[in-house]
Amino acid sequence: MTVAPRRLESYVCGSWTPGTGEGQLLLDAATGDPVARIDSSGIDFAAVLEHGRRVAGPRLRAMSFHDRAGMLKALGLALMERKEEFYAESLHTGATRPDGWIDIEGGIGTMLTFASKGRRELPNTRVLTDGAVEGLSKDGSFVAQHILSPLQGVAVHINAFNFPIWGMLEKIAPTLLAGMPCVVKPASQTAYLTELCVRRIIETGLLPEGALQLISGSVGDLLDHVTGQDAVTFTGSASTGRRLKAHPAVIANSVRFTMEADSLNASILGPDAGPGTPEFDLFVKEVTREMTAKAGQKCTAIRRVIAPRAHVQALVEALGERLGKTALGLPGDAATRMGALASLEQRAEVRARIRDLQADAEIVAGSPDEVRVSSGDAERGAFLNPVLMYCDRPFAATAVHEVEAFGPVSTVMPYDTPEEAVELSRMGKGSLVTSVFTDDPAVAEEIVLGAAPFHGRVLIGNRASAKTSTGHGSPLAPLVHGGPGRAGGGEEMGGIRGVKHYMQRTAVQGCPRLLSAVTGRWIEGAAAQHDVHPFRKSLAELRIGDQLVTASRTVTLEDVEHFAHFTGDTFYAHMDAAAAKANPFFEDRVAHGYLIASFAAGLFVEPSPGPVLANYGVDNLRFLTPVYFGDTLQVRLTCKEINPRANAEHGEVRWDCQVTNQDGAVVAQYDVLTMVAKHWPPEAVA
Amino acid sequence: MTVAPRRLESYVCGSWTPGTGEGQLLLDAATGDPVARIDSSGIDFAAVLEHGRRVAGPRLRAMSFHDRAGMLKALGLALMERKEEFYAESLHTGATRPDGWIDIEGGIGTMLTFASKGRRELPNTRVLTDGAVEGLSKDGSFVAQHILSPLQGVAVHINAFNFPIWGMLEKIAPTLLAGMPCVVKPASQTAYLTELCVRRIIETGLLPEGALQLISGSVGDLLDHVTGQDAVTFTGSASTGRRLKAHPAVIANSVRFTMEADSLNASILGPDAGPGTPEFDLFVKEVTREMTAKAGQKCTAIRRVIAPRAHVQALVEALGERLGKTALGLPGDAATRMGALASLEQRAEVRARIRDLQADAEIVAGSPDEVRVSSGDAERGAFLNPVLMYCDRPFAATAVHEVEAFGPVSTVMPYDTPEEAVELSRMGKGSLVTSVFTDDPAVAEEIVLGAAPFHGRVLIGNRASAKTSTGHGSPLAPLVHGGPGRAGGGEEMGGIRGVKHYMQRTAVQGCPRLLSAVTGRWIEGAAAQHDVHPFRKSLAELRIGDQLVTASRTVTLEDVEHFAHFTGDTFYAHMDAAAAKANPFFEDRVAHGYLIASFAAGLFVEPSPGPVLANYGVDNLRFLTPVYFGDTLQVRLTCKEINPRANAEHGEVRWDCQVTNQDGAVVAQYDVLTMVAKHWPPEAVA
Repeated sequence: MTVAPRRLESYVCGSWTPGTGEGQLLLDAATGDPVARIDSSGIDFAAVLEHGRRVAGPRLRAMSFHDRAGMLKALGLALMERKEEFYAESLHTGATRPDGWIDIEGGIGTMLTFASKGRRELPNTRVLTDGAVEGLSKDGSFVAQHILSPLQGVAVHINAFNFPIWGMLEKIAPTLLAGMPCVVKPASQTAYLTELCVRRIIETGLLPEGALQLISGSVGDLLDHVTGQDAVTFTGSASTGRRLKAHPAVIANSVRFTMEADSLNASILGPDAGPGTPEFDLFVKEVTREMTAKAGQKCTAIRRVIAPRAHVQALVEALGERLGKTALGLPGDAATRMGALASLEQRAEVRARIRDLQADAEIVAGSPDEVRVSSGDAERGAFLNPVLMYCDRPFAATAVHEVEAFGPVSTVMPYDTPEEAVELSRMGKGSLVTSVFTDDPAVAEEIVLGAAPFHGRVLIGNRASAKTSTGHGSPLAPLVHGGPGRAGGGEEMGGIRGVKHYMQRTAVQGCPRLLSAVTGRWIEGAAAQHDVHPFRKSLAELRIGDQLVTASRTVTLEDVEHFAHFTGDTFYAHMDAAAAKANPFFEDRVAHGYLIASFAAGLFVEPSPGPVLANYGVDNLRFLTPVYFGDTLQVRLTCKEINPRANAEHGEVRWDCQVTNQDGAVVAQYDVLTMVAKHWPPEAVA
Repeated sequence: MTVAPRRLESYVCGSWTPGTGEGQLLLDAATGDPVARIDSSGIDFAAVLEHGRRVAGPRLRAMSFHDRAGMLKALGLALMERKEEFYAESLHTGATRPDGWIDIEGGIGTMLTFASKGRRELPNTRVLTDGAVEGLSKDGSFVAQHILSPLQGVAVHINAFNFPIWGMLEKIAPTLLAGMPCVVKPASQTAYLTELCVRRIIETGLLPEGALQLISGSVGDLLDHVTGQDAVTFTGSASTGRRLKAHPAVIANSVRFTMEADSLNASILGPDAGPGTPEFDLFVKEVTREMTAKAGQKCTAIRRVIAPRAHVQALVEALGERLGKTALGLPGDAATRMGALASLEQRAEVRARIRDLQADAEIVAGSPDEVRVSSGDAERGAFLNPVLMYCDRPFAATAVHEVEAFGPVSTVMPYDTPEEAVELSRMGKGSLVTSVFTDDPAVAEEIVLGAAPFHGRVLIGNRASAKTSTGHGSPLAPLVHGGPGRAGGGEEMGGIRGVKHYMQRTAVQGCPRLLSAVTGRWIEGAAAQHDVHPFRKSLAELRIGDQLVTASRTVTLEDVEHFAHFTGDTFYAHMDAAAAKANPFFEDRVAHGYLIASFAAGLFVEPSPGPVLANYGVDNLRFLTPVYFGDTLQVRLTCKEINPRANAEHGEVRWDCQVTNQDGAVVAQYDVLTMVAKHWPPEAVA
């Protein structure tokens, strides 16, 4: 008895909708059994975009960065609880459990990393400031501040078949954190897993309606309707990517388009890393792992293995031996080390590309046409044993640098000098990642800096990071993922950088008072209020611009001598008039910088118990004018930024601290960072 | 007797070359007299790109950022000396002296600003680090650092006719600072001024050969030859821009493409800024200036004037009166307030667009067809008096939000609420700039934040910045120039952001030791050397990783009491056990943060005269663990970054300073910033 394949649905405009057509039948990669039908006919794609823009956009933008980070954290934790269901569904894609881990837990972990970074690295606001205040006039009456605000359209994420969950989550996490709704369109082949994950996401009720829509099947005429406030990302084949990037509406409306396409990633064995070294063994392991994980269907997999000519023979032997032991079979089978390709069509495609590569390279291990499996049916399942190739004259070759066989296939090529190794890595014309295995700092420097302009990521492998390295093939949430040229020229993730991809940068110019009103931060020259000591105010009472101008204090010879002997800081500029005068910066003995900051605190603190809980740091402290004996200091302390924490009874307050001397010259300028209670006394909580 | 027009040449592959064809005749905008012939036939454009890549790229990349900044400064100063020659040539473009000032001194000033920012804001290195070190393993054995390295291709800058000098310099300054060679292609109409400026640049000999090439005339098949390491920027009409952006080689190689095209910039009169307020008068002045400067041929000019319905009548009257007084004539004539459009073709074009606008709007001042001049020939010169239009129902209109008449033409439109004003500004579908004239912080906040996602720049005008504001229409080197959607989606300048447009960001992963070798900065966990006290070493001797581990010191109750009374900092957390214990961060009285930093300095300084000249600041100071009485502190000070100054006998050294307690917990972490002599004793200079 066969079960009818389930019919995938799209989640659009607030409801789950099957397509109106018969659709495409999707088969299990390893067994060939029907899994699902997929179709998106009948969907009004213009309405999908408009639903995201009108329904979800305003709700997401009404949330602060910390609100959205909290939402992502809750969502990530809820998905992690359901992971076994995803693992089970993932078997249909041909993925083993370790393969599934990359996709499922890797994807959820990426979402959780963005949640964590959002809370730690972003303020609890709706608009970000970007860079420093720029002075535009000598008298300070005209200044500028760049700000970043969420785009007011929808991000359309078009994904590849190989990571149905990670591919979605790594894109929607930064998008949602930015405050922008998403439409996800997974590749049909494995869309059943994405669809299942979206069902679970929607069921949590954690996202505002319209923040995430799913299209199971073709996107139809959706791209005809994108505007300058929308964004489109694409991961997949270069040919499709180019077509989308040049789509008339994308071009006409200057739609942000991020592409991550083909990539002939290389891994380089350092000249120092011959057989017998830990790096040689790590290299063999890494190349094997990259060839066999996800059956080599990773955009970051090692396609080109670049090794010193002297070690090529040993390397090919070691790789061949290891690859030959890779048990190929049903992904759910405990003995299986490598599962199936995504489909029989993919296998045919990989075999065709191997034939292309044979123009430049010979097969030195494995055979594309004879399939050996330890379980499963070698013909109904899309199995392909690893194939290692060797190209003896890589500088005369083109196919090995241009043809991507998206499966368990790599080509070894020899080099004679480190410059040649760099040059070979660059012959890929832009890749996502290159790695180099070496324990020699000079080799690392030469190869990394040489390869860097052509790559989005470069990994150095050696004995010191053998246990902790995340490996050549793993994009990580804190690091940029994407590469120039052939790799598509895109950039994803990279921590908060990836959030900014979905925001518009705007330079705002004006007088400090009005600019401060716009940015919600105090700016030099903006209005200030003077009433009670600002350290007497809780977050409920404190306002941007609350300011204290202190009494003054004269710094004496005795103060400096006393401080020097008390702290032990008897640096000559403080103690020795002749030496101080010989110094290009001073005319005489000067007070310690730390003495100035300490006296400043003595002038500005309010000593009795109050809402200010702690001084947890100081930023950007600069000593701008020397303080000589007899100079008189005064401090101006102004509340600059207030950042209440979502889950605590306090928050961070940043104070602008300016210390001047009797002539009004600025002696020291810095930010004082404090923790302040939301209410004072604490029992005053409403 | 007529002089034969001069024949413009291209500067390519190291020599000045006229085209082989007859070329196009260029006429003086105001007199109609022949000025020059332009033609680029016969140039091998593939060779031009290759010349930049092979000859100039390596030389530019061998220079440090400070070297390149110094080169730009010298070049800017040299050009400023020759400015009168440019002003004279500029008259042919129809530009008055104030118009020429924007182009000539504005352009040179932009170059000098980049020179200054390069020295002040960039390190004296060849590769930049970007963002913080990212920990990727719990034990610190695997970390990452993003770096930025110059692209290894050529930047092709295709410019508009309206700013022949500024348009070139604002693009080549950040490009050259990044370390990338340029090819400049000015719009033919005014290329004679660009060509003159390039001649003077090349004559200085300040640029490495190939760093700047000029194409006078068509770029032929040049774009067919761009690669993923090249970049293309375009300023001009949207139709041409779209064609170039979708060029097969640009798409296929993921070439970075920056576009700055049409923009229907708006200026909004705040609801508070009625007749009689300073803001109303400033608004009238600004709109008039933007309509008439460069005869309205600025991509940032105000095309849409958005005003409260109640004030529209008064506004139209005030603008009409002021515009009517604008003397139109020969640009070199002292009485002239507005010069000519760039050509008779441009005038015909602007008149055609005015007819398009008449679908939605009526002419309320000026007449497109009757030309009144105070000097010059109204028919041979491309003169056009300012035309003010009025659109009563802007929400029902399309032409006024979509048609750009690139001349002295603006349309007034009324709004009833601030939300409507924002919505109208956004109906331009993405602009370079919007301005709002208001003295009300709430109005500024609402309109600026509402307009921001659709704009690259928003200016607030009011009485406080009346004298110092650089105005609606002025892009500035420190601020981003570019806008989303219709404006092209590009971003130029923005200070150092603009330099990074010509660099590749790469995430580098590895163990701290090897990563430190690559980045040239000490990273936590990297190797450290211990020999003499590092404060005894001049820059000639100091090495990254030179480290001092100090003696230890116990902090006592007496120390804290003494410090409190000496500095005046008697904050309760230091003085009052009960209050400290009630605080959520402390278990008992704690030492002052400033005491910890002061004792740390006492532990690490080397007191006798030596190469360390001054402590000029502290960065990123965080107090991470409370210090209780009886705790014992120890300091580890490590040389992290060395930045020798190009033009001084010293440089900056950044030290990683870590203070730990008796349990090894980190009590405080910060960077200490010092000035260190290049040699010690000073007479030891080689």
